[in-house]
Amino acid sequence: MSDEKYFQDITPRERAIFEGAITMGALFHQFIGTPVSIKTAKSLERAIEKSMQLQPCIKKVEVKIDREMLEEALNEYQYISLTEDMLNVKVISEYGEVRIVVRMRYVEELHYPLMYVESVD
Amino acid sequence: MSDEKYFQDITPRERAIFEGAITMGALFHQFIGTPVSIKTAKSLERAIEKSMQLQPCIKKVEVKIDREMLEEALNEYQYISLTEDMLNVKVISEYGEVRIVVRMRYVEELHYPLMYVESVD
Amino acid sequence: MSDEKYFQDITPRERAIFEGAITMGALFHQFIGTPVSIKTAKSLERAIEKSMQLQPCIKKVEVKIDREMLEEALNEYQYISLTEDMLNVKVISEYGEVRIVVRMRYVEELHYPLMYVESVD
Amino acid sequence: MSDEKYFQDITPRERAIFEGAITMGALFHQFIGTPVSIKTAKSLERAIEKSMQLQPCIKKVEVKIDREMLEEALNEYQYISLTEDMLNVKVISEYGEVRIVVRMRYVEELHYPLMYVESVD
Repeated sequence: MSDEKYFQDITPRERAIFEGAITMGALFHQFIGTPVSIKTAKSLERAIEKSMQLQPCIKKVEVKIDREMLEEALNEYQYISLTEDMLNVKVISEYGEVRIVVRMRYVEELHYPLMYVESVD
Repeated sequence: MSDEKYFQDITPRERAIFEGAITMGALFHQFIGTPVSIKTAKSLERAIEKSMQLQPCIKKVEVKIDREMLEEALNEYQYISLTEDMLNVKVISEYGEVRIVVRMRYVEELHYPLMYVESVD
Repeated sequence: MSDEKYFQDITPRERAIFEGAITMGALFHQFIGTPVSIKTAKSLERAIEKSMQLQPCIKKVEVKIDREMLEEALNEYQYISLTEDMLNVKVISEYGEVRIVVRMRYVEELHYPLMYVESVD
Repeated sequence: MSDEKYFQDITPRERAIFEGAITMGALFHQFIGTPVSIKTAKSLERAIEKSMQLQPCIKKVEVKIDREMLEEALNEYQYISLTEDMLNVKVISEYGEVRIVVRMRYVEELHYPLMYVESVD
């Protein structure tokens, strides 16, 4: 890509980490708040995956929305807004020969939707 | 619905307008900025429609993302962020016997993505 | 405004309801998910108010983010994401001689962040 | 922080890059679409900065919204939605003794709001 001059100070491994992290931050803040139900969860998961896979260096995105929480949370309106504790996401980014898996899941002990680097190959 | 006590001051027609308008404002501000390309536009349109149809009184949502703009706007990254001028949306809301069509489209003469009531039945 | 031809089928009262509802839906879906803490809540409230007051027919927006929830929810990261149950909002819209107050607050009995028309003058 | 076990496979420098990148992706997708005008731009800049500075390892965020574009773009509604080409952002993240500057600005030659690592100390 012709953007390479902007990344001369970092290694391929750092570039893969950088791009995976951008996509995870983007995914969270773009889609949190979206109305969702048992019936629409699959369509939403696929659309999130497809849109976020467009970003630079992103090879694959896997999104799982917690179906149990969707069932338990149901009110009379039959849907809720997507929240951080319902999301379990993997983002696989590659640059050169490096492949990174960035993960986001709600970590109970931290009370926080933690984003971290799950593996580096 | 048990929320009816909150809507005693307005007519069924006003309620349908109210709910249709909420959904249009919500749709715009939830999804603007989403990465999109020719290849993912359809999946995104369907996911937007399904999620916004969950909202109260909403019977149908039709979303069209401008394919020509997607083609023209392409950079070397092969995708762009969803912008207001690419969206053409119909939201159909019903309450009692009233049916409202709320529309959003970019109006060139106003330089603005206008939301308006297209019809009332 | 020169957009009046788009609103010929609805009354001034309906127009005020329409614009107030758009702004409430927009506010919710634009800002849900924003990082917030006790220290930044006031700045965020003011920025939300100022930005949403820009929309057509909107005279005033009042946003309150629940400080108790911010305090209780604190994890070791010292902030959380803005959620629907922390928001209490009033949007005042006017068209012609009509003034509408649209309200959003989390209603416990509905388990839902209800948006409704609080008053019409 | 007690989240350190999740970051054992990466270096301090990579951690700083990771957290800076998350915040840049988050900032973009949280706030794109927000109504903004010459009068409200400063309040919005400050609120974005304060909210994004809450994220892990983020020491400083500087947001500039292009005032010329706000002036040129004005329609009869006297505001527009925040778009990618109006944003110029610096995010400074630190971990251990490493300090990273992540930058986002619209790069004309790429037709793209590029996020990149501007410096590493």
